[in-house]
Amino acid sequence: MPVITNVQVTDVRFPTSLTLDGSDAMNKDGDYSAAYVVVQTDDPDLCGYGFTFTIGRGNDLCVAAAQQRGLPLVGQDVDEICADLGAVYRELQSDTQLRWLGPDKGVVHLALAAVMNAVWDLAARRADLPLWRLLSEMSPEELVAAADLRYLSDVFTPEQAVALLAGREEGRKQRIEEIAATGYPCYTTSAGWLGYSDAKLRRLCEEAVAAGYQHVKLKVGASLDDDIRRCGIAREVLGPDGKLMIDANQVWDVPQAIAWVRALAEFDPLWIEEPTSPDDILGHAAIRTAVAPIGVATGEHGMNRVLFKQLFQAKAIDYCQLDAARLGSVNEILAVYLMAAWYDVPVCPHAGGVGLCELVQHLAIFDYVAVSASLDRRVTEYVDHLHEHFVDPCVVRNGAYVLPSAAGYSAKMHTDSLDAYTFPTGTYWATPVVPETIP
Amino acid sequence: MPVITNVQVTDVRFPTSLTLDGSDAMNKDGDYSAAYVVVQTDDPDLCGYGFTFTIGRGNDLCVAAAQQRGLPLVGQDVDEICADLGAVYRELQSDTQLRWLGPDKGVVHLALAAVMNAVWDLAARRADLPLWRLLSEMSPEELVAAADLRYLSDVFTPEQAVALLAGREEGRKQRIEEIAATGYPCYTTSAGWLGYSDAKLRRLCEEAVAAGYQHVKLKVGASLDDDIRRCGIAREVLGPDGKLMIDANQVWDVPQAIAWVRALAEFDPLWIEEPTSPDDILGHAAIRTAVAPIGVATGEHGMNRVLFKQLFQAKAIDYCQLDAARLGSVNEILAVYLMAAWYDVPVCPHAGGVGLCELVQHLAIFDYVAVSASLDRRVTEYVDHLHEHFVDPCVVRNGAYVLPSAAGYSAKMHTDSLDAYTFPTGTYWATPVVPETIP
Repeated sequence: MPVITNVQVTDVRFPTSLTLDGSDAMNKDGDYSAAYVVVQTDDPDLCGYGFTFTIGRGNDLCVAAAQQRGLPLVGQDVDEICADLGAVYRELQSDTQLRWLGPDKGVVHLALAAVMNAVWDLAARRADLPLWRLLSEMSPEELVAAADLRYLSDVFTPEQAVALLAGREEGRKQRIEEIAATGYPCYTTSAGWLGYSDAKLRRLCEEAVAAGYQHVKLKVGASLDDDIRRCGIAREVLGPDGKLMIDANQVWDVPQAIAWVRALAEFDPLWIEEPTSPDDILGHAAIRTAVAPIGVATGEHGMNRVLFKQLFQAKAIDYCQLDAARLGSVNEILAVYLMAAWYDVPVCPHAGGVGLCELVQHLAIFDYVAVSASLDRRVTEYVDHLHEHFVDPCVVRNGAYVLPSAAGYSAKMHTDSLDAYTFPTGTYWATPVVPETIP
Repeated sequence: MPVITNVQVTDVRFPTSLTLDGSDAMNKDGDYSAAYVVVQTDDPDLCGYGFTFTIGRGNDLCVAAAQQRGLPLVGQDVDEICADLGAVYRELQSDTQLRWLGPDKGVVHLALAAVMNAVWDLAARRADLPLWRLLSEMSPEELVAAADLRYLSDVFTPEQAVALLAGREEGRKQRIEEIAATGYPCYTTSAGWLGYSDAKLRRLCEEAVAAGYQHVKLKVGASLDDDIRRCGIAREVLGPDGKLMIDANQVWDVPQAIAWVRALAEFDPLWIEEPTSPDDILGHAAIRTAVAPIGVATGEHGMNRVLFKQLFQAKAIDYCQLDAARLGSVNEILAVYLMAAWYDVPVCPHAGGVGLCELVQHLAIFDYVAVSASLDRRVTEYVDHLHEHFVDPCVVRNGAYVLPSAAGYSAKMHTDSLDAYTFPTGTYWATPVVPETIP
C-alpha cells in the first residue's frame, strides 16, 4: 500500500525564443516552459509525473501554486486515490481561498492541472497501463464519476452522460485495434511559425507533405499582405486537396477577424483558429456565421468547462481545441469530451509546447475508443519540438500518432533535461549560450 | 520631475476566519487579504498605493506576480506616466509570457490590478485630487484613450464612446454638488453573513434600518429551509417597502438556481446575486428569463471586460457588480462603465473585503458625474469591516458614501496595520491570539 510522501515541483524552461520556434502574431518570443510535478511515494519505483505548460516568465508562479495545490496529497494512500480519482480532484479543487483567485482559471487552475496530471500518471503507472488504456477500461459510470460536471447540469445529467458512453461501448476493442494498426491522425504546425522566412516555410511544407501529412497550419494575423503570400505558398505546395489551417492567436477584434478571414478565403482554409479573445463566446459565434463555410476553432486558452459549455451552446465553434495542461486535468477534460460528443463537435486537441503532444495522444485515442467513436473531422496537433526531453516521447509515423504502449501519461522527463533546464539554477541557465546568428 | 524608484509589494492578511465575518455558502472561512503595492519615487513625499483583494492562501502568488508586473515601472518619469495612463497600462499588460497565464484573468490579472491601482493613486496624488475628481476632470477623449477597448469594437468604436461621454458632460458640476450634499447611496451586507445566528441577523437588520439603509443583503444557498427563515426575518424587519437582496456566491447550477430563487420569490428580492458560475454568461441569461421580475446581478468574479461585454450583449444581468481589484484597474473599469452606459445597465460595484469600499466610492461617484449621469437603480455595496487600517477610510452617513476629499484613491494603509498583519512576519501572525469563543 504505497503512500504519497512528497509533491516536488520544478521550474523547467527551454530557450525557444532564441530560434523563434513557436512565434506567432501574439506570442513573439516564448521560452517554452513547464511547471513540472513529481508525486513521490514511499515506493522509490513508483512516482507520478505531470506538468502545466507556460511560455516563460510566470512559470515560477505556477510552480509556487502547484506546491500549494499538492499539499493535501501528502500522506494519502495511492490505491485509495486511484480508486476514486474524482474525489481527489474535488478535494484539491475545494480550497476556497485559492478558488477566489480564479475560480477555475489562471495560475491556480494551471497548477491544479499540473498536479492532477501527475496524479493520473501515477494511477496509470500503478495499473501498469498507458493512460489511454486506463481510461478505455473504465466503465461509463466510473468515467462520469471522475468527470467534473459542476455547472453543467443544464447540458445533461450524470445519468444522461452515462447513457451516452454506454451507447459507444460496442466496438471499443475494434477501434483500439484500428488505432494500433494505423495510428491517430495528426497535423503539423512546425511549418508555419510566423518568424520563419518564405523559403523555410516552403521547404517545411514540402517536407510535411513528403512525410505523409494531409494538413498544414500557418500562423497569420500580423500583416495581411504577408498572410496572402504565405497562404499562397502553402496552398501551392499542398495542392487543392490538402487541408490548410490558419491561426491568428487572438490578435483580432471581432469585425477585424471577419474582414481578415474573408480576405484569405481564396486559399480555402479548413479553419480559422483563435480569431479573437478566447473568452469571447458570442464573438466566436458571430465570426463563425460570417465566415462560413470556413470553420472556427478555439480552445487552447479555453480556461475551463464552463467556457466550453457555452461555446457548444452558442454554436460558436466547429472544432474544439482543448488543452491538456490548461483544463483541470483528465477530470475536467472528460467533461469537455462528454459535452463535445453530446453536441457532436469534433475535438482536435491543442498540442506543441512542452510535452503537450505526449499528453494529447492519450486523450484523442481515448476519445475515439470510448467517447465519440469517430475520426470524422478529427485531427490532433503535432509539433516536432522538445520531445527528446521525455522518457516516453510520442511517435508520429505517416502523419499519425503511434499508439502509446508505456505505462503512464508519457509525462516523465529525463533527469539530464531537468539538470540542464531547471530555471535559473540548471547548467544551461547558469551559463547560457547565445547562438551567433538568430534566424 | 519625480522618477519611480521601486515597486514594493507586501502580503497583508487579516484573520477574519476567526469570527466568520465574510462567511457565505461558497467561502466559509476567508482570511481577508491584500497584495499591497507601494510605487515609490525619488520624492519621499510622493508614493502611489494600491492592492488587489484575496481571501487568504494564494495571496503570496499575487504578491509575486505584482512584483513582476511592476518591474517596467522602475525608472519611469511620474509626469510622463500621468500624462498617458493608457500607455503605461498597455505596457504592463503587453508582457506576452505573463499573458499566457491568463490572458486577462486569474493571478496575473489580479496583480495587474494591484499595480495599476497604485499607479492611478499616484496620478491622483500627483494632481492633488481625489481619484473621482481626477477622472471627472478628464475630457471624453482622455477617458477613452485611457480605457482598455481591446476586443470591444463590436460594441462601439472609440469615437462612439467619446460621443457617449460628451453627451453627459452637461451637468457634471451640478451632480458633484448633489453628491457633496447627499452622498452616494449604498447598501449593507454586514447584516447577512451566513455564519451569523438568527438573533444576530435580526439585530443587525434592525440596526441597518435605524442607520438609514434602504437595502439589506443576505447570503443564501446553503440550506433552503434556513434561507426561507432568514429571508422572513429580514423582510419582517425591513417592512414591505425595504429592498432585500440575496446572494448565493456561485453555489448553484443553472436549473437549481432557478428552482431555489423561485422558492424565495415570496420575500420579493430585488436581485439574486451570483446565482451560478461567474463565467456562465448564457446561464445567467437563462436564469434571468426564468426568475423575472427578480433581477440578476453578478460581477465580483467577473474576470475581464470581455466577460462583461457578453453579459451585456446576452442581456444576462440587471445589475453589473464590477470589482475594483479584479478588473485591470481604472483602465479596464472605464471600459466596463462605458459599455454599461451603452447598454443602459446600472453598475452597483462589489465592495467589502479589504479596502474595496475605499476604492469603489470613487468609481461610483465618477460614474454618476461623467458616465451614466444617473442614480436610478444604483446602489453601491458597503461592509463595515477593516476600514480602520486605511489612512483615508471611506465615510458612510445615512446610508450613503460621503464624497471623498483627500488626494488619491483612498488605498493607503497605516504603517501600524502593515507591521501587525504582514504575513507571516507581522506581529499578529508571529504570535496569533485565538479568541476564547468563536461565534
